[in-house]
Amino acid sequence: MSVELRQRIYEELDSLILVDPHTHINPHAPASETLADILGYHYYTELAHSAGMPKSEIEDPDAEPRERFGRVIGYLGPLRNTIQYSWFVDIARAFFDFSDDHITPDNWEQLYDQALEKMSQPNWPDEVLRISKLESVFLTNDFDDRLEGFDTNVYIPCLRTDELVFHLHKPEVRRRLEGATDTALTNLPALKDAIGALFDHFVSRNARACAISLPPDFAPTRVLDGRAETALENVLRTPEDCDQRDCRALSNFVFWTLTENCAEHRMPFDLMIGVNRGVYANGVFQGQDLYDSRVSLIQYAELFNAFPQVTFPISVLASVTNQELVSYAWIFPNVLTSGHWWYSNTSSFIERDLAARLEAVPGTKQIGYYSDMYKLEFGLPKFRMYKQVLAKVLAERFVIDQGWSEQQAVQLGSQVLRENVDRAFPKLG
Amino acid sequence: MSVELRQRIYEELDSLILVDPHTHINPHAPASETLADILGYHYYTELAHSAGMPKSEIEDPDAEPRERFGRVIGYLGPLRNTIQYSWFVDIARAFFDFSDDHITPDNWEQLYDQALEKMSQPNWPDEVLRISKLESVFLTNDFDDRLEGFDTNVYIPCLRTDELVFHLHKPEVRRRLEGATDTALTNLPALKDAIGALFDHFVSRNARACAISLPPDFAPTRVLDGRAETALENVLRTPEDCDQRDCRALSNFVFWTLTENCAEHRMPFDLMIGVNRGVYANGVFQGQDLYDSRVSLIQYAELFNAFPQVTFPISVLASVTNQELVSYAWIFPNVLTSGHWWYSNTSSFIERDLAARLEAVPGTKQIGYYSDMYKLEFGLPKFRMYKQVLAKVLAERFVIDQGWSEQQAVQLGSQVLRENVDRAFPKLG
Amino acid sequence: MSVELRQRIYEELDSLILVDPHTHINPHAPASETLADILGYHYYTELAHSAGMPKSEIEDPDAEPRERFGRVIGYLGPLRNTIQYSWFVDIARAFFDFSDDHITPDNWEQLYDQALEKMSQPNWPDEVLRISKLESVFLTNDFDDRLEGFDTNVYIPCLRTDELVFHLHKPEVRRRLEGATDTALTNLPALKDAIGALFDHFVSRNARACAISLPPDFAPTRVLDGRAETALENVLRTPEDCDQRDCRALSNFVFWTLTENCAEHRMPFDLMIGVNRGVYANGVFQGQDLYDSRVSLIQYAELFNAFPQVTFPISVLASVTNQELVSYAWIFPNVLTSGHWWYSNTSSFIERDLAARLEAVPGTKQIGYYSDMYKLEFGLPKFRMYKQVLAKVLAERFVIDQGWSEQQAVQLGSQVLRENVDRAFPKLG
Repeated sequence: MSVELRQRIYEELDSLILVDPHTHINPHAPASETLADILGYHYYTELAHSAGMPKSEIEDPDAEPRERFGRVIGYLGPLRNTIQYSWFVDIARAFFDFSDDHITPDNWEQLYDQALEKMSQPNWPDEVLRISKLESVFLTNDFDDRLEGFDTNVYIPCLRTDELVFHLHKPEVRRRLEGATDTALTNLPALKDAIGALFDHFVSRNARACAISLPPDFAPTRVLDGRAETALENVLRTPEDCDQRDCRALSNFVFWTLTENCAEHRMPFDLMIGVNRGVYANGVFQGQDLYDSRVSLIQYAELFNAFPQVTFPISVLASVTNQELVSYAWIFPNVLTSGHWWYSNTSSFIERDLAARLEAVPGTKQIGYYSDMYKLEFGLPKFRMYKQVLAKVLAERFVIDQGWSEQQAVQLGSQVLRENVDRAFPKLG
Repeated sequence: MSVELRQRIYEELDSLILVDPHTHINPHAPASETLADILGYHYYTELAHSAGMPKSEIEDPDAEPRERFGRVIGYLGPLRNTIQYSWFVDIARAFFDFSDDHITPDNWEQLYDQALEKMSQPNWPDEVLRISKLESVFLTNDFDDRLEGFDTNVYIPCLRTDELVFHLHKPEVRRRLEGATDTALTNLPALKDAIGALFDHFVSRNARACAISLPPDFAPTRVLDGRAETALENVLRTPEDCDQRDCRALSNFVFWTLTENCAEHRMPFDLMIGVNRGVYANGVFQGQDLYDSRVSLIQYAELFNAFPQVTFPISVLASVTNQELVSYAWIFPNVLTSGHWWYSNTSSFIERDLAARLEAVPGTKQIGYYSDMYKLEFGLPKFRMYKQVLAKVLAERFVIDQGWSEQQAVQLGSQVLRENVDRAFPKLG
Repeated sequence: MSVELRQRIYEELDSLILVDPHTHINPHAPASETLADILGYHYYTELAHSAGMPKSEIEDPDAEPRERFGRVIGYLGPLRNTIQYSWFVDIARAFFDFSDDHITPDNWEQLYDQALEKMSQPNWPDEVLRISKLESVFLTNDFDDRLEGFDTNVYIPCLRTDELVFHLHKPEVRRRLEGATDTALTNLPALKDAIGALFDHFVSRNARACAISLPPDFAPTRVLDGRAETALENVLRTPEDCDQRDCRALSNFVFWTLTENCAEHRMPFDLMIGVNRGVYANGVFQGQDLYDSRVSLIQYAELFNAFPQVTFPISVLASVTNQELVSYAWIFPNVLTSGHWWYSNTSSFIERDLAARLEAVPGTKQIGYYSDMYKLEFGLPKFRMYKQVLAKVLAERFVIDQGWSEQQAVQLGSQVLRENVDRAFPKLG
């Protein structure tokens, strides 16, 4: 009974046209050029490396895409149990008519060629969006991105601010900020102006969110202008060596200033909480980051209290933080639950985290899912995975456990999948 | 199969007459007077506020109950997915013949009037208890409560001690303690005497538990009398400004003294571990508290070792602490698992926490559930929710997974629901 | 459907001949002599004590085995819900033709006698292994074990190193190390030589792993030889009083040296992370240890980076650390997930932890289970419990949720149950 019920709910949810509220798509090259782009995604390179593939082989600068792809295929055997491998098979089936059980050293070449032909068609990105039932996707833009040359109604800009908050002590970052805003960063007012100018630019280009990823030990606090001024002076005087306390003061000041600008421009601030960068120093590209799950949202209490007018869609890296997220979203009007991030973006973690959210956070305050993808082809399998888990939770915990009608369940699913994205990220400017 | 099995087990469990071992019922006004009392419960006001209802509208001192009720109804739409909303619908159906799908701006007035009529009947509290199959409920009494004017066999006193432990540095609290015990708190022996007098009074009035809620950073330790004496002197000398170390010494001393009295009077000490008060400073009444889930029961190791003769029914606020609770109850004879508290009191957290307890903690050491309610009408839907989850876990993890008979499963359920409450909280004095 | 499917998968998995990669078996007395050895396992004594049995009665030096057994039986009633009790019933049924529902004060004597007769047969250990479908078991050997007088192909040595790392400041431990290696521990090079000699000896006796259990606050780091030399000198000079910093330096030095030897001898290093010893000081034998779940694998980042050539099968004590384990094993090639340890070795924790591993860690990097047993009879019920959960997860999350064939599911189960043990712990020397 339950399996058929899930399937019916899934099919209703799968008929929706969605907006993907967080991706790393490059709007100038949104889809893959070859299947090597697919297996070049860090989920595959890091898992293949973890299962025994040498980094030198993965990141060989001399290898052509076809060769790189074929090499990784040889290491997929140990990954067949992973949900990430299932995304790849889903892509092969949905887009490239693949029909075998597995992608192996014996059958990959035909698949590669078939994909190459489709990917070479000029309208391929639009075709992927159409098949994936995605109407638009949010980007992750460097603060100095010109945001030109693409349709900002389909590829919606989002101001990514990690570098501003954590690396402003680096001359190169300051130079880029000066260039982007035509401002000399000689003192604190100039820094404030520069940040304000970024927001003006992004809003004028249809940006609908500001975003940042944060390490587990970050605990934002308001820093007085005087303290920030001193920190900035010290950084400017000795650019080669930022005192840790100055760095922290500057980080906090920039973070707070960004939030003030979010308030002023009514822009939501996506907080992605919990990542430690570079933990596995010799890992493959983008396969080096991990975390310390000992983080608490109480570190953000001052922020949530200080900015009641700013919407904070929150993602947490570890499932053990999910209950705190549920509780904070349950009483703070400005805290929203947002997606299932990275190491929590696998079926069993989604299932338990989602169940906890659906039963205790107002239905209007949950952003169900984002793909986090770098290439458009991943939207389909990732959203499918989520919709399958969502259908399971709705079937088991609402229809069966609580006697909801299927229609009510589908409505709730639709709300977290689509309506809340429109609600949380309205058009600005 | 499983659904029918669950249903049969549920019906058996639902036929039991229960004792609710922790509530905030006012024995002088145990039931609601209007439905505004129901929607005035912080679960609704904080969720409605979180979903967009202004605090000023919720806490408008000029609004009549009927008006207040109608206003919150307008904000219930976004809460329909929550388990808390389902409690409200359950109440409307079980007590007031409500039969629509939802309570809306269009149908609430009839419900309100119907409820008003029933609630106005003089025997309404008894009627609620009868329908809810509750024989008695434990209270949460201020330390200076006279405990008079009610039937202590139905409304069982419980000495709540948060103020004594954490606010004794406040003159007002000391004044109340002096008044309640007719003791001048001039030195440490007097303080000990006063605390002893509270226990004598409570035991004489049929109290069966001492209780406290504790912040995540509390780690009780024995303080020498000399250190406590100094702390008390300092507090008495400069009442306006308690040094943090003195406050902590005094808290620890009072906590330890309370536990000594529990030992002497054979009274269980309910520890509710993990809450941070006032995190959302501008939240609605009782909707401001949250937590830091980074807490460990190892903070209580000294206590559990020092008082083997005291029963400690333990509640933890966050589900991530549940495994520690299971493990500590598994080897410490004096540690009991107790209920599913507050932010963990929703179906999916109960399900996973309960499953872990039932498979590893002696069956005699688990207090299944308490309602934590402020008005009697909430006992029914909250216990129902628990009994449904209990039936599910018993059906799936004992009958199906382990081949237990239904009768054995019902016996285990009955043990944690009822027998263990009698066992853990015997009549004293 | 799901129940029959699980059963079919279970039967396939149950037909495999396994290797148990971590036990505490004494190879000179591997099986039980009487049923008192079974109920003498700390899981029963600590649970019976927790449920009310006095320690003095459990550890009565004057009681004969039969009497001790009979006494514990009297306290089993409250434990019938526990998974540990179910292991006991499983043992009684599988080995001793027991067929009642429960073992009680009324029927234990016949069972005891029946067991005594079987256990007295000279080939009983081999018979237990045969019935349990275990081909060999890994031991936990003291560093000064001679490793003689048993078949190291069935009872595979494993070098346990807790004492070396955490108690080398004790003269007795140093004396034993000196005796085992014929080395005078007068300086650092001698200590290194002694540790090297242990590895040579263990490898020559077919050892296939080094192992250690670690407290939650341990964070291994490389210590310079000079610092370690100073620490060793101080310890040698004042053996009665080890300065905490010296102790820590010495611990880190020994730990690092052990890991270097693992690298040199290609020996895996089992890390069992998270236990606090002696938390319940008055608990029964082996029933005193608990934990603080606030531990992170980031404490091991330096180690994992420094020794890419060493395989680290990792066990975590608390389920809340499981997601970190999954994530670290997902990107670090040298990190493997290993079994379900102690307080996490119950069905519901295994189910959630296993589901998370199977969907995100390469299939070749998961060591499904070890029994941790002290007597051979426990291998059967413990592995059965695991295989049942494994069959459930494979049925529900792979066959039903993802459309895998039963055969594919069984292959994955077989991989984590058996193949990966051979892969992770190859024969050395």
